[in-house]
Parts: sequence; structure tokens; C-alpha cells
Amino acid sequence: MRIANLAGRLVLLTGDGAVDVERASGQRFPADPHAVYARWTEFTAWAAGLRDLDAEAFDETGLRAPSPTPAQVFGVGLNYRDHAAESGLGLPESPAVFTKFPSCLTGPSGDIALTGSTVDWEVELVAVIGREARNVPAERGWDHVAGLTIGQDLSDRTVQLAGPAPQFSLGKSAPGFGPTGPWLVTPDEFADRDNLELGCAVNGESVQKGRTSDLIFPVPEIVARLSAILPLRPGDVIFTGTPSGVGMARSPQRFLAAGDELATTIEGIGSMRHRFTEPS
Amino acid sequence: MRIANLAGRLVLLTGDGAVDVERASGQRFPADPHAVYARWTEFTAWAAGLRDLDAEAFDETGLRAPSPTPAQVFGVGLNYRDHAAESGLGLPESPAVFTKFPSCLTGPSGDIALTGSTVDWEVELVAVIGREARNVPAERGWDHVAGLTIGQDLSDRTVQLAGPAPQFSLGKSAPGFGPTGPWLVTPDEFADRDNLELGCAVNGESVQKGRTSDLIFPVPEIVARLSAILPLRPGDVIFTGTPSGVGMARSPQRFLAAGDELATTIEGIGSMRHRFTEPS
Repeated sequence: MRIANLAGRLVLLTGDGAVDVERASGQRFPADPHAVYARWTEFTAWAAGLRDLDAEAFDETGLRAPSPTPAQVFGVGLNYRDHAAESGLGLPESPAVFTKFPSCLTGPSGDIALTGSTVDWEVELVAVIGREARNVPAERGWDHVAGLTIGQDLSDRTVQLAGPAPQFSLGKSAPGFGPTGPWLVTPDEFADRDNLELGCAVNGESVQKGRTSDLIFPVPEIVARLSAILPLRPGDVIFTGTPSGVGMARSPQRFLAAGDELATTIEGIGSMRHRFTEPS
Repeated sequence: MRIANLAGRLVLLTGDGAVDVERASGQRFPADPHAVYARWTEFTAWAAGLRDLDAEAFDETGLRAPSPTPAQVFGVGLNYRDHAAESGLGLPESPAVFTKFPSCLTGPSGDIALTGSTVDWEVELVAVIGREARNVPAERGWDHVAGLTIGQDLSDRTVQLAGPAPQFSLGKSAPGFGPTGPWLVTPDEFADRDNLELGCAVNGESVQKGRTSDLIFPVPEIVARLSAILPLRPGDVIFTGTPSGVGMARSPQRFLAAGDELATTIEGIGSMRHRFTEPS
């Protein structure tokens, strides 16, 4: 199943069309795309029973973040061996967790204003929680995931590396620096949900390519490690980390410039496209 | 003016009594304590015009976090010179910002379950945003603050210091590790809002004492620095940092144990009291 946030309304995607959930459910489920996660089991059971859907064509530029107002956004740093190595920091023994402050969240297309000359790309698999998780073992981790989407963990390296300790959260939270989308795909839709190719390209040139099978802490392990410390709530968003190929680690370094187009792709989900503009 | 969250309802405090805002305003303002921040100017104007208030006695154990469901929670690390020195990290040139994940927020009294044998205290002045702030100069920083309250930035040092980089956010976000309260005091209520004594005591023994005049980045400067990067929204909560005296920096080190009572006090606001229990 695929669901999306179409101009602020929850829709179910069917082939090339979209079904408005509030209307199709006779107001049983509200239009608010965030509200569905708190009733995920009920919603998926309802959706599985649907027949003869009246899907309508839709404009993909209307797509927004699949979980637009999460109570909590988690980011995991250094979660691929090759990226931990290129960052010059050691391998983590437990997930290195930061936040992307929710005001940075945006959708899967459109313009993003740069904040300076050191803004970097980071393709990431993003998981959205569909069932509260507290002290969940890794073997049951997937049971708490509503679905997967694409994320960009855009990072202002100057802000991030200022100060006595790396400033992960603030450097990754300028407006527009947390795009997700274009839709949420439930885990059962993937042939192998633990092994997805992901990558991004700047102006058509591939800059990152990896596989989620190389995650040091895969999705269910992240759910286990986080839920051992705090409750993960329906709609919470987890950016799972980026593989190697970030601009900061290149020689010479390369960052995003005004006019650049960034395409971000994950196997079995799709692509996001963003264009960067001058600092406002 | 003082407002509080009394068992989930917004109240105005008058001397020893509480006025239920929804009832007193004839439903003009809702009971939800979070909703008031988005209408802060309108609310304070209404409250200033009240006469002959019908205040009722209230039970202080019913008090909850003044901003219970913030979209964003900011923590500032190493924001007092003496604490930065005792932490062994250098002085920050810009605020070291992390988050306390919102699921850790709790009220000004009650029990808190320890997560292990290295849970530490950190008294902090907490500011709540009352007017959206974006690119606000420090001279105007106070204009965006609804009020001040007391916070404890409780920290599991084992979690915090695991991994290749300090794990500020996760180590400070176990359930109950973000108490605030007992009420919100508007900045105009203080003789000198920039110079408040703050401290905490374990079982009656003072362990931290400082003054907010020693903040490296005072409240209006934090508003300026954060709002230069992202929008601060009504109800957003800022933990501004702790002075010296944390248990980790003592010789020998000292941490919270089951049965310990922690009293946390800020001049002109009041006190919070918590008791710690065995890990659950």
C-alpha cells in the first residue's frame, strides 16, 4: 500500500490515481495526514478491504511530507561504515542520534533556499512509526513501522561543525532541510525491505549510491535501540543515516549551489526532486 | 502574570488561587494549555483587562508542564563558563544546541524512574516562545518570549557519552527527564529578568547554585541565534543550560539514587520537587 499527503489531505495511491481517504471512508478517517498513524492497524485493515476504488488523477507537485507534523524526528548519524570512515569519526557502538527540528520538514519537490556555501546532500531511508514502540526487540522492530519514504538530510556543514562538539541538529534544520516523500510505502510492498538501493544525483551526476543492507543499525535495530530509551509514537519520523559520497568528504569538497537540481531516489519507493536557490 | 497547566487545563494564577481560562473567557480561549501561545498577544491583552476574578483554591500536585506539547524543544549545552570548564569541553563560540525529545516532558512534581546509576541533575532556566521568531535581533529577543519557567535537564551520562560524539539528545530524553514548571511567569514580573538565582538540592543539600547573569548566551541572544537559522514557534521550549555543580564533574562523582529527592528552584518563579525511583 502507498499513502500520500496530497495538498494536506491523506490519499491512498492506486496505480496512477489517488483516492481521498476521508471521502472514501465516509469520514471514518479524517483528512489530516498525520492522524492516520495513531489508528494505523484500523486504517490498514480498512484499506485492505477496499474494492472498486474511484481513483482520480493527481498532480504530483501537490505532494507534501507523508508525516508532516511528527511529535519527534530522529536522525541517526554515521550509520554506514563507508560514511563513518569518510567523516573521520569512529564507528558508533550505539546509534548516534540527533534531531532535525520539525520546522525543517518539507515535501518531495520544490525550491529550497541555501543558507550559505557549505550545504551538503545526504540521501536517507526514512521510516515512519505506525504503532507505539517501547522496549521492542529488534525481531519485532518492523511491526512498529507504518512505512518507508525517501529523505534528504540536508546539512549546513559550517553550522554543523561550529562549536566544541558537532552541532548535528542545528546544522541540519534550516527551513526546507528535511524533505521527505513522495509517498509512504508499507514494508510488505518491498521484495526485500532490508536491502534497498538508495542514491542521489546533482544535475544528473550521481554523487551517492549505496544499499540499506549496509546500515550498521538497520531499521528494526534502530526501533529497538531508540525504544529501549524512550517511546516512539505514531507518526514519529526516523532519518536512518546516509552512505558515503557527501560533498564535504570529496576532494576537492563540493557543495550545493544556487540553480543545482538534486534528485534523490530509493529503490521501490521513487524519487524526490529539489532545486536550490540563493540564501534568502 | 502567571499561567499554569492545571490537570490539562489552562489557568491564570492570582495570589493563592487559579482562574480557569476557558470558563472565565466564555470559551474565547480553549482549555488546551498549548493553544494559548499561538494567540499570546490577544491572550495577554484579555488577561490584563480582567477585574474581580473568581479564583479558586487548587491542589499544586495537579500542576503539569506549562507548554506540554511543544513542536520543538531546544537545549543549549555548555552555556555557563564554569559548567563548560567542568565538562572538559571548550567555551562555545555559538550555542551548542541539542533537543530533549518531547516524550521526556513532564510536570513539576512526582516520581521519575531512573535509567541506571549515572543519572545527573541540571537546573535550567526554561523560556517558552509566545510569538514566532525568525531573524530576530538580540535587542528584540525578549519580545518573543511568553515567559520563564523552571526546568531540569536530567541526563543519563552513560547514554550521553556513548559513541563517537557526545549523545546529548538521547541521553537527556528518557521518560520524565524533562520536567518543567510549576508555572510560567511573564518576563515583566521580574525585577531583573536577566539576573535570576537558580539552583538545585538533593535531599536538602545544595548541589548547584548560579545566576542567569552568567549565561554565555542569555535568553534574548539564544532567541537571536536560533531564529537566525530556523523559525521559533509559539509554545516552543528552550532549556538554556546549566551552571556548574553537576554530579558527573564532582570528585568523587555523584549521581541520583532511588529515593533521592531533588528540589529545583529559580528566583522569582518557585520550585519543583521530584523523587527518583528504581529503573523500571
